[in-house]
Amino acid sequence: MRRRSLLLTAAAVVGVLVSSTPAVHGDEGMWLFNAPPLKQLKEAYQFEPSQAWLDHLQKSSVRFNSGGSGSFVSADGLVMTNHHVGADDLQKLSTAEKNYLRDGFHAKTRGEELKCKGLELNVLQSIKIVTDEVVGAVKDEFTPAEAVKARQSKIGELEKAAADPAKGIRADVVALFAGGQYHLYVFKKYTDVRLVFAPEKAIAFFGGDSDNFEYPRFDLDICFFRVYENDKPLQTEHHLTWSDAGTKENELVFVSGHPGKTNRQNTVAELQYLRDTGYPFLLQRLNRLEVLLGSWVERSEANRQKGEDDLFGIQNSRKARIGGLGGLLEPKLMGRKIAEEERLKQFIQMQINDRRAKTAEETKLLETAKGAFDAIAAAEKLRAGMIKDVTFWNNGAAFNTTFFGMARTLLRAADEKAKPAAERLPEFAEARLPSLEFGLFSDEPHYDDFEILKLADSLTMTANHYGSADETVVKILAGKSPRERAFELVSGTKVKNVDFRRKLYEGGKTAVDAAADPMIELARLVDGKSRELRKEFESKIEEPKRNAYSALAKARYAMDGDKTYPDATFTLRLSYGTVKGFTEDGKAVPAYTELGGLYDRSKSQGNKYPFELPKRWDEKKAKLDLKTPFNFVSTADIIGGNSGSPVVNAKGEVVGIIFDGNIQSLVLDFIYDGDIARAVSVDSRGILESLTKVYEAKELVAELTKK
Amino acid sequence: MRRRSLLLTAAAVVGVLVSSTPAVHGDEGMWLFNAPPLKQLKEAYQFEPSQAWLDHLQKSSVRFNSGGSGSFVSADGLVMTNHHVGADDLQKLSTAEKNYLRDGFHAKTRGEELKCKGLELNVLQSIKIVTDEVVGAVKDEFTPAEAVKARQSKIGELEKAAADPAKGIRADVVALFAGGQYHLYVFKKYTDVRLVFAPEKAIAFFGGDSDNFEYPRFDLDICFFRVYENDKPLQTEHHLTWSDAGTKENELVFVSGHPGKTNRQNTVAELQYLRDTGYPFLLQRLNRLEVLLGSWVERSEANRQKGEDDLFGIQNSRKARIGGLGGLLEPKLMGRKIAEEERLKQFIQMQINDRRAKTAEETKLLETAKGAFDAIAAAEKLRAGMIKDVTFWNNGAAFNTTFFGMARTLLRAADEKAKPAAERLPEFAEARLPSLEFGLFSDEPHYDDFEILKLADSLTMTANHYGSADETVVKILAGKSPRERAFELVSGTKVKNVDFRRKLYEGGKTAVDAAADPMIELARLVDGKSRELRKEFESKIEEPKRNAYSALAKARYAMDGDKTYPDATFTLRLSYGTVKGFTEDGKAVPAYTELGGLYDRSKSQGNKYPFELPKRWDEKKAKLDLKTPFNFVSTADIIGGNSGSPVVNAKGEVVGIIFDGNIQSLVLDFIYDGDIARAVSVDSRGILESLTKVYEAKELVAELTKK
Repeated sequence: MRRRSLLLTAAAVVGVLVSSTPAVHGDEGMWLFNAPPLKQLKEAYQFEPSQAWLDHLQKSSVRFNSGGSGSFVSADGLVMTNHHVGADDLQKLSTAEKNYLRDGFHAKTRGEELKCKGLELNVLQSIKIVTDEVVGAVKDEFTPAEAVKARQSKIGELEKAAADPAKGIRADVVALFAGGQYHLYVFKKYTDVRLVFAPEKAIAFFGGDSDNFEYPRFDLDICFFRVYENDKPLQTEHHLTWSDAGTKENELVFVSGHPGKTNRQNTVAELQYLRDTGYPFLLQRLNRLEVLLGSWVERSEANRQKGEDDLFGIQNSRKARIGGLGGLLEPKLMGRKIAEEERLKQFIQMQINDRRAKTAEETKLLETAKGAFDAIAAAEKLRAGMIKDVTFWNNGAAFNTTFFGMARTLLRAADEKAKPAAERLPEFAEARLPSLEFGLFSDEPHYDDFEILKLADSLTMTANHYGSADETVVKILAGKSPRERAFELVSGTKVKNVDFRRKLYEGGKTAVDAAADPMIELARLVDGKSRELRKEFESKIEEPKRNAYSALAKARYAMDGDKTYPDATFTLRLSYGTVKGFTEDGKAVPAYTELGGLYDRSKSQGNKYPFELPKRWDEKKAKLDLKTPFNFVSTADIIGGNSGSPVVNAKGEVVGIIFDGNIQSLVLDFIYDGDIARAVSVDSRGILESLTKVYEAKELVAELTKK
Repeated sequence: MRRRSLLLTAAAVVGVLVSSTPAVHGDEGMWLFNAPPLKQLKEAYQFEPSQAWLDHLQKSSVRFNSGGSGSFVSADGLVMTNHHVGADDLQKLSTAEKNYLRDGFHAKTRGEELKCKGLELNVLQSIKIVTDEVVGAVKDEFTPAEAVKARQSKIGELEKAAADPAKGIRADVVALFAGGQYHLYVFKKYTDVRLVFAPEKAIAFFGGDSDNFEYPRFDLDICFFRVYENDKPLQTEHHLTWSDAGTKENELVFVSGHPGKTNRQNTVAELQYLRDTGYPFLLQRLNRLEVLLGSWVERSEANRQKGEDDLFGIQNSRKARIGGLGGLLEPKLMGRKIAEEERLKQFIQMQINDRRAKTAEETKLLETAKGAFDAIAAAEKLRAGMIKDVTFWNNGAAFNTTFFGMARTLLRAADEKAKPAAERLPEFAEARLPSLEFGLFSDEPHYDDFEILKLADSLTMTANHYGSADETVVKILAGKSPRERAFELVSGTKVKNVDFRRKLYEGGKTAVDAAADPMIELARLVDGKSRELRKEFESKIEEPKRNAYSALAKARYAMDGDKTYPDATFTLRLSYGTVKGFTEDGKAVPAYTELGGLYDRSKSQGNKYPFELPKRWDEKKAKLDLKTPFNFVSTADIIGGNSGSPVVNAKGEVVGIIFDGNIQSLVLDFIYDGDIARAVSVDSRGILESLTKVYEAKELVAELTKK
């Protein structure tokens, strides 16, 4: 571990210089549970969490693999998350007669709880640092393609050794600090998850897209599930206790959850790529999908049920990206990034200039770090040229239907499973197959009309982007209009049938080839192109960037020591902050809203969608204490993926649940801004008041409060 | 006129060949009133309209310069159009207290009628053919730029000579058959137009974007205005009489209106341009705007009132373009176009091969026609490369705010009005100034927040398309974020004030320069670039295409004689067809819907927006004869711009009003398809029943029915 010690020494040398520009601002940080911000908490809040406190919070935290966070809130495996995290499952469980997403759900007994389809929860058990093993697998003389392969192979090996599918133990190697560190995360995996309670969408998502990412808010964005093992509720030693008192303004709070992806370590060149190419390109597709799905769900209630959840996801992404893009276009914010980069460049140059004797390895690392900015800029240039091809053919944007994803997985599984471990695409590594199979064999419903709509549109988009005369476009359309072709493919494919998928998956290449399924044949048609693009993208863009960012991450670590934390990777992180309002356009926005404010907002919007209250809320208004805190904001550093994260007080008790950030928080992707960016939570007191008086969910309240 | 006779002779030569592929299909055609389809009507329907019948229909027809059609329906200047044609005016007349667009309006006396802002109506008085004059102004030796100038100058001259602003006489030279013919249209212009009646938007646009371009439909898409002259209702000798009986299935009907723009004479190369570049590029912006405005209007009732009409316009365009694009991506339809083009190519080649002696002029024309396909293809290639620049800088997409348009008009007026007539941009020709001034000095309300929203978004889009480092982008953003810059420009400009505009317009260059208005300075910043692009586009793309299409139009005329009609140009046209249902997905869709069907549809959609009925409609249901025909479809050949056109029977009586086409009609932009494409109308019987029983508009019914 010489590198680390070198750079720590180096940091000390320039300590005086760098201290003038702190690496973190205020309550910034999405900290690793194996490197918690002990110093910061002690200095800023005189709070010193014990290891037991941290362990308990870690093991009470739950990852929803569908893309969110949650926590155990009873000894009987009860999990709390957001309604919008559970929305996907609410939709899958709904039928033509019962629309749980819209109308809510309430199992008054365990027998009434509904088993979810394809939902996997993970609970982090342990973290082991495996940087040396993974980095050591890559030799200096390797080409980029060889390096990718060697690293993936080593990662596959480590994961396989640590996993135990029979016992539900899953292991993932996580690349942190842009590949500067590798940690092996071992999870307990749960796949028997049942729906316990969900409110109506109209209250969970009160204000809809309109109020999303705004504040003040009035949303009961909660949902409860229960984890089962061997058909019995899981007994959870680690679960969070409900707070009696909630929070006060300026109180210290913690968020334990799974931020998805941040780009804070990005160089200015990469931010410019995102600003000028990446975000605009993505937004163009999001706008297109929002209009497509938005107009379709409005045609009938049946459509709404099928497409509404996807639509919400798209609107949410769109608003988040517009916010992020707005930040990137903000000269002041970009200026801060440029200044930060300048500081790092100066630090690296100072190390190079330093006359102290260096090993060959140290010298090489400093040279790599120095050249990293240009290397990344060059990679971003290539990326701008490849983004369209990669998105359409490798990421599958050309074929926007769930059935294409299934078809491709079947086609590739047949090829990949026949290969030795070291040769496989990483998603087909032995240790990852159980999760892949769980998803592939889920019997969640799909609807041909909805799939045709999306596929026809994406085929049209593909013909538009490449021109109707493009060789691949001609092949995939096969002489038909996009609409006709989509109809033919969706109607004709059997991959929609779970037994068929199982048969082909188990039957391997022979079965897949013999099936002559139109969707699989479509996947085959573009598979060569797709794999080639992926390889090229990995070796020409990702690998050089990984090397460059890894060197920069080490330099940054040397400069700022443990004041740094890695970019988010949808793994468990600890954030902290205080309950605090903010100022917008010169006007103070208070930290808390109250239940009474909900009724006022609905009224001022004419009680119309998306501000229409569920009947139950009108009927029970008189019973409610309208002064009860409903939502609140805090300075905790969160991002997408944190949805459903428990907010706890210093005692580790639940005081709220994260469900959003304000519009000013959308730049947190790139940069923390504690002055105005805020995390938005449902208050634990508002939850109890609603469950008790509006939903009369006595058994649920008793389980939460242990009373 | 030798050219014409040449080609007529030529047509006769190959008459046998071409008759096997008729140039028009079924009820195809948007016919000129000075070249009506007398032969077709006689052959297909044994109907022979008299000149008086045609004149009366022509002079009863009204053009809404805001983009639609209408007709006089009483001797006191009463005009009927669609609610969605009047929507713009309803919005402008609305206040914070009175939302006429949403809630409707009903003037029970003339004194209560409300004067519209900036609305100009035109009634066609006469047509004169001026082809020789216009074509003669362009000499063979002219460069394309000189040709454009000479033609514009001649057109300006002709228009000025025919116009009489003091008497409200407006004259426009209209280029038909792609510049193969020029007709001078003389209009009577009316600018004192008052709102008489509008139903609630919820019934006028029942089903919203969802049911737009669909059938069956249940919409009362009507609106009444009254034209005033000298503060008194206009006495209209020419106005349409209301039919007592309405129509029967298979009855012949006529539509007299102003189809906006069709592309039926387009070569395959131009259709391919539209399919692969033009439409996708436009749709990308429409999607973006729909998402922007859609999410904004949902935030509050105040926003909805400000932005809803623009939003509807965008949704309408989006749906129409998606339909058109679908047609272009339909191999069968494109195949028909390719076959038609092949037929024309063969005809031209046969003429060239024909040994008959030809004049030099004839030979040149045939050569031009032969080379036209390649010339257009080359121009379309250039166009694909220029479309972005032209759209952003010349068409002003970079600055999506009404205030920018005003600022640019003021800036340019100061320059252009100082020039001699022949040198001016055509929109500043003397004859066109009154209409330009009428629009510029309209005191319709604008809202800073809405203008900031649109401008910030378009500045963001511009930065995205060109990159933040682009020289012009840097200049227009002036070191600020798009949002900050938009705020500064919109808040700071005084062009929002009508007196300020008048002062600057009258003060000329000195006043404009001295104003130092931020929006005018922005317009100045890009004016050089914008004018240059316009010039380049006109000389390199439009002019070569005009020449090529003009030669093709002559060849086509020679081939098919008076079976042809020119592409639509938002001037008065006559279409005809029969009331007839169609078959969709193997299911018969009947021609008529009834009032009762409205209630059924609303109920099946949970009575929810956009299927919620106005209260009045619920209350009066019992009084209505639910069997009354409400909407109907016919085979008449219509397109956007025909909205509000009267539908008349063989006696010239009103039997309905056009308000939409079915989804299958959206290809009519390129190709007529009488099998499934249908025009959708409100039935005159449904209108009377609604006015009488739902709105109790006795005086209006009496005026319409003269009873």
